[in-house]
Amino acid sequence: MPPSAKEIADFIHARLLGNGAVQLTGISSIRAASNGDLVFVTDERKLPQAIASGASAIITGEFAADLASAKPLLLHPQPRLAFARAARLICASSARKTGTHPTAIIHPSASLASNIAIDEYVVIKEGVSIGSGTWVGAGTVISKDVSIGENCEISPNVTIYSGVTLRNRVIIHAGAVLGSDGFGYVRDEVTGRYEKFPQIGRLVIEDDVEIGANTAIDRGALEFTRIGRGTKIDNLVHVGHNVQIGEDVVIAAQTGISGSAIVENSVVIGGQVGIADHVRIESGAILGAQSGIPSNKVIRGKGIVFWGTPARPIREYLKQLAVLARLAKKA
Amino acid sequence: MPPSAKEIADFIHARLLGNGAVQLTGISSIRAASNGDLVFVTDERKLPQAIASGASAIITGEFAADLASAKPLLLHPQPRLAFARAARLICASSARKTGTHPTAIIHPSASLASNIAIDEYVVIKEGVSIGSGTWVGAGTVISKDVSIGENCEISPNVTIYSGVTLRNRVIIHAGAVLGSDGFGYVRDEVTGRYEKFPQIGRLVIEDDVEIGANTAIDRGALEFTRIGRGTKIDNLVHVGHNVQIGEDVVIAAQTGISGSAIVENSVVIGGQVGIADHVRIESGAILGAQSGIPSNKVIRGKGIVFWGTPARPIREYLKQLAVLARLAKKA
Amino acid sequence: MPPSAKEIADFIHARLLGNGAVQLTGISSIRAASNGDLVFVTDERKLPQAIASGASAIITGEFAADLASAKPLLLHPQPRLAFARAARLICASSARKTGTHPTAIIHPSASLASNIAIDEYVVIKEGVSIGSGTWVGAGTVISKDVSIGENCEISPNVTIYSGVTLRNRVIIHAGAVLGSDGFGYVRDEVTGRYEKFPQIGRLVIEDDVEIGANTAIDRGALEFTRIGRGTKIDNLVHVGHNVQIGEDVVIAAQTGISGSAIVENSVVIGGQVGIADHVRIESGAILGAQSGIPSNKVIRGKGIVFWGTPARPIREYLKQLAVLARLAKKA
Repeated sequence: MPPSAKEIADFIHARLLGNGAVQLTGISSIRAASNGDLVFVTDERKLPQAIASGASAIITGEFAADLASAKPLLLHPQPRLAFARAARLICASSARKTGTHPTAIIHPSASLASNIAIDEYVVIKEGVSIGSGTWVGAGTVISKDVSIGENCEISPNVTIYSGVTLRNRVIIHAGAVLGSDGFGYVRDEVTGRYEKFPQIGRLVIEDDVEIGANTAIDRGALEFTRIGRGTKIDNLVHVGHNVQIGEDVVIAAQTGISGSAIVENSVVIGGQVGIADHVRIESGAILGAQSGIPSNKVIRGKGIVFWGTPARPIREYLKQLAVLARLAKKA
Repeated sequence: MPPSAKEIADFIHARLLGNGAVQLTGISSIRAASNGDLVFVTDERKLPQAIASGASAIITGEFAADLASAKPLLLHPQPRLAFARAARLICASSARKTGTHPTAIIHPSASLASNIAIDEYVVIKEGVSIGSGTWVGAGTVISKDVSIGENCEISPNVTIYSGVTLRNRVIIHAGAVLGSDGFGYVRDEVTGRYEKFPQIGRLVIEDDVEIGANTAIDRGALEFTRIGRGTKIDNLVHVGHNVQIGEDVVIAAQTGISGSAIVENSVVIGGQVGIADHVRIESGAILGAQSGIPSNKVIRGKGIVFWGTPARPIREYLKQLAVLARLAKKA
Repeated sequence: MPPSAKEIADFIHARLLGNGAVQLTGISSIRAASNGDLVFVTDERKLPQAIASGASAIITGEFAADLASAKPLLLHPQPRLAFARAARLICASSARKTGTHPTAIIHPSASLASNIAIDEYVVIKEGVSIGSGTWVGAGTVISKDVSIGENCEISPNVTIYSGVTLRNRVIIHAGAVLGSDGFGYVRDEVTGRYEKFPQIGRLVIEDDVEIGANTAIDRGALEFTRIGRGTKIDNLVHVGHNVQIGEDVVIAAQTGISGSAIVENSVVIGGQVGIADHVRIESGAILGAQSGIPSNKVIRGKGIVFWGTPARPIREYLKQLAVLARLAKKA
């Protein structure tokens, strides 16, 4: 049974105006909405368009309280957030079936909760443990002594090296590699050749982390790499060995974080940013896309945007760009 | 039977000089050419070297019309293009065999054309359709309701998420991920934590697109991501949710295109370029390697090269670099 | 039997002080060391901490020769290097078992040495050869006519295209793609459309190369791509067609090297560096992170660091940055 507008309002703690019995079977953008769809509006000017759309209900803000609408309205102080939560309820009906495909190869020493879904050609090695509600997509390889918590979603063709820990509700997208060897070598001063430094540490990924497609995260060399609770990492990101990433950090696509860097809580990192080894990005700093932080630097400033290579406060950087443009125009 | 020089000349609409009966069994660079090989020459000064090489025939321009050559010459206004086409004819003889490997797991509801090749350990889920002449390499996972056209080539270990559409003659290289969730979260202003915004849109890849190894392309959030006809994308490229890429666009390796950006027809994008969200690159613009386009910008100028971060017309940028270098020398 | 301090000292050619009979069962950082662990110290000031730690033996320099220590000391001119070598001896006891998993699909024409390890769902096509001591991880696909030497380690979900050669002791991390088609097209001047230029060359990876997770290396177009002996490549690196990389080169994560570039011996390349097509980086040059080398440039200077885009000697670049900052402050 799809949820009603009333059930959704209760679930997201919204104030319901209008017919609460309307059933919602899907979510949509306003433009593509059809019967049964829930949409959301954060900008008052888009309300008429939403009301005129094919949608069956609208999540919006208190600014719509006095509006005449034939569609039920669900009023919430954060409509976009409320919509994201409502979507979980609506889409839950199409949830994955549990069960283990007969082609999955699971080592007898692995400890798997009962209501999990293990797809075709998954390989699970000795000593692995997987918590209830977790899904492992086809072709994924989970090496020795990996520990995976509850309600994780691991897409197809992921590789998890030995000794990695995923806590609960971790989402891993296809092609991601977790726990690969870090890039550590010792140069023999006599021969000039590089020898591999041991990479035997661990990788811990805490609750509610999401990791994008084809991202690669290295294990620690001798100790561990850590991705903190609630952190979101986009596609094709590189995280080197011994890196410590805090909680609620956002890292956009193709950013690279070198060995032993520290990224504190609530940092926001744009795409293609480069963070060199042993850097510390302090809590709440914001790094603009493509900026670069040289080795051993400390970036400090809650809510301050840094940009450029080497990264400077954005006001400074923009002023430098403006000065240079003016000089070049005169030249 | 390998094709003769005459058959190739007919196929590529070239003017044949010399012995048309010579059979061509391979293609080669001039340097490595041996008996049976076809080579090409675009630069008149390289003709003597080609004639002296081990090759059995030469594709070249009208500038060679009066030349005495013991080897057959195939004259074409675009020798490199003609060579690329001829290569298809010569290499067709070594084409893939059709058939489905017994270890491929194909859902009974999938609709597969008869003359396709499905390799070892491929997984094809419910509702998938695949057109004739298409090859799916070993270990590739094709999720629910994916639609793949005719004569596509999908390399090993590719992951295609549910609801993705590939039209005809699409080439996907190994490790690519198509249709992964976009990077969309809503920050709860009360708790400071991020919640996942639904990523349930689609991805459409049109005819004749090629996508490089380990590239990741996200589905739309609520609507769709589109890669237009004839567009070529290199390795390790990131394309975010809702991105609209036009026709005949070229995107070099490691470029990242953020959510909701628009790239119009015939744009050329160098390697490691960063395009922020909601940018529009208008038709025919050229973005130099590593350049960066900040959010919401519009880049306009057919045939104009832009460079730097933030990207400027290259003449402007080079002038700025020169002015700065001069000032530093004086300082 | 785990090795004794005496056996390790002999293996790494270190001078042993103290009890050589102590057995070493693991390696560790000083901070995490427990009984049985070997640690190393390069900085004299950290010696007391190492001696006070739980470790059972310490590799260090001659500066510790006069020290009173209850733990055995192994003195070596390059303690870090000696530790890396000792780690190999200690960790060898937990080496992989040999054998071929019954689900591996191996073409009858493949030629495999006897003491190798082939894991679950590996696919090995016709004409492949694999030398003794090599491990192939689960889900890896090895195409036609690939040649792999002795004692290689190929992680799970790797894809190797046809005709690629790996010499001995090559390490490939998960998700890497070797030998994919290069990014080569010819634009038809009449229609404006791109046609694929043939990509039929080879890729040769020499002894002792290591290649990171999700890195992609293209085959040659008509000739070959080469990665020289002892070169180390990090995660998510792109190497284009026809690229020639010398020996003992170090390439950090997310760097991209475009078609036909040449990187000579002992070059050091930081992360996210972009090297355009037909560039030559001469022996011993060092490229700072995120620097960019435009097409056809030659970078020369053993031991000289280059930085910025376009890359300049770092002193020049830093001076330019300083001049610009000063001007902006005055403005």
